[in-house]
Amino acid sequence: MAKNDNGTRVRDALRATAELPDPGSSPVGPGKKGKGEKKLATAGERLDALQEALYAEGTSGGGRSVLLVLQGMDTSGKGGTVRHVLGLVNPMGVRYKGFKVPTPAERRHDFLWRIRKELPASGQIGVFDRSHYEDVLVPRVSGLLTAAERRSRISQINAFENEVVAGGTTIVKVFLHISPEEQLRRLVARLERPEKIWKFAPSDVEARGHWDAYAQAYADLLARTSTEHAPWYVVPADRKWYRNWAVAELLIETMTEMAPRFPEPQFDVAEQLAKLKGDGVPA
Amino acid sequence: MAKNDNGTRVRDALRATAELPDPGSSPVGPGKKGKGEKKLATAGERLDALQEALYAEGTSGGGRSVLLVLQGMDTSGKGGTVRHVLGLVNPMGVRYKGFKVPTPAERRHDFLWRIRKELPASGQIGVFDRSHYEDVLVPRVSGLLTAAERRSRISQINAFENEVVAGGTTIVKVFLHISPEEQLRRLVARLERPEKIWKFAPSDVEARGHWDAYAQAYADLLARTSTEHAPWYVVPADRKWYRNWAVAELLIETMTEMAPRFPEPQFDVAEQLAKLKGDGVPA
Repeated sequence: MAKNDNGTRVRDALRATAELPDPGSSPVGPGKKGKGEKKLATAGERLDALQEALYAEGTSGGGRSVLLVLQGMDTSGKGGTVRHVLGLVNPMGVRYKGFKVPTPAERRHDFLWRIRKELPASGQIGVFDRSHYEDVLVPRVSGLLTAAERRSRISQINAFENEVVAGGTTIVKVFLHISPEEQLRRLVARLERPEKIWKFAPSDVEARGHWDAYAQAYADLLARTSTEHAPWYVVPADRKWYRNWAVAELLIETMTEMAPRFPEPQFDVAEQLAKLKGDGVPA
Repeated sequence: MAKNDNGTRVRDALRATAELPDPGSSPVGPGKKGKGEKKLATAGERLDALQEALYAEGTSGGGRSVLLVLQGMDTSGKGGTVRHVLGLVNPMGVRYKGFKVPTPAERRHDFLWRIRKELPASGQIGVFDRSHYEDVLVPRVSGLLTAAERRSRISQINAFENEVVAGGTTIVKVFLHISPEEQLRRLVARLERPEKIWKFAPSDVEARGHWDAYAQAYADLLARTSTEHAPWYVVPADRKWYRNWAVAELLIETMTEMAPRFPEPQFDVAEQLAKLKGDGVPA
């Protein structure tokens, strides 16, 4: 029985450390698919209830929100996580944003400009499918960033996230950790299924050629940006059901701790009821 | 058996006419709750598949999107429709926007300015929970709009929607039609359930006092803005399961007709497969 209500069990177990877990492991929670899927269904109900309370709180200017940042190699399951975890709650309260290669217009601003515009509002769960972290990872691996520029961006990111957290947004940063073997299987599967080919890009094969450089860049980035106010969690993601369960639980633990509250009515409930019932039905 | 694949059966039956249907009726489709809920589950799978194809098409610049506009009196179920119908598809492809009373900053622009900013992108299903129609309805009932201003806004709306459709967006406008008796029940239920009170506002009771004026304003608006390029559908909404089924089917019929297509790969699939398999797993 997971004792993670109001707890920190899953967050503690998945918090980023110097050593990455095995991408096929279960550092916490269910070890088998059947159990994992059953637990996800229950998690869905809790997540849904928490999301509704956060949304309700937001309508009266609660000022709080959640931001889920999803990072990971190609095919690590960022999209699948959105579908299977965020799909469990009311779409009204979810603000999804996928970040692509910056456009020329976006490049004319500093790298955090386009990110800021997509931050969640009061009561929302924002989801970043890729994020400002790409702006350190990609140019680093491509050799387009000096060490000084990289350090500067990292310190800007930490300051930015600190500001966002101070503004009432709880940030949950998740690195979906897959193995190169699993990536190979998933890329091949995309190519072999006509209705999945659209998810494939030749650049995925290219990026795969730089696997070690990306792994190194991620390890470095996780170490430098896993802060007290916005820690990174590493989710073993070779097994999709485990990934879904883990991300759902990270959100649930986080939001349980936030304890969103339905706002108190700012009017006399009995009076409104009397008005309605006296009023009855218009002719 | 609903023969609405590629058909227009539900759209034809629900298309706005001079006479509104009974809010508790089933002009088309299931008449009983059990059947309605079963059909919604099946509809969910089809809607999900259509949404994925539209999204996939959008990634290669398909240029097409869907915009669902939800209007209706307070408690008519706009939020419930979002939850139960849009909740059936991948949140990645849904762009939800709830429009509130315009802010002072928004008022400094023309009334369509804030609407344009929220239009769906290629591949997305946009959802407007209230919309530019509020800018005719509310000031009309409040007596803040002259007849000439009203006519001007209506012709601007028709021109605007024509432009949006020409740009590749299929607009599905839905008026959720409830009875004043059902609204009374729902408002009372909100007040009597602590976890639902946040959905209630004293202004709802006030607006209810103008029921006939709103009904008249809606009838007039539906008649003047139900165009060939962007028709209105009237969904009897006293029964939530019917409302959900009907909106899902309207989307399904519309998207089936759009026939979104997975993009053709712009690369040699066999070559990429060979590259991947030859490459194997990096050391």
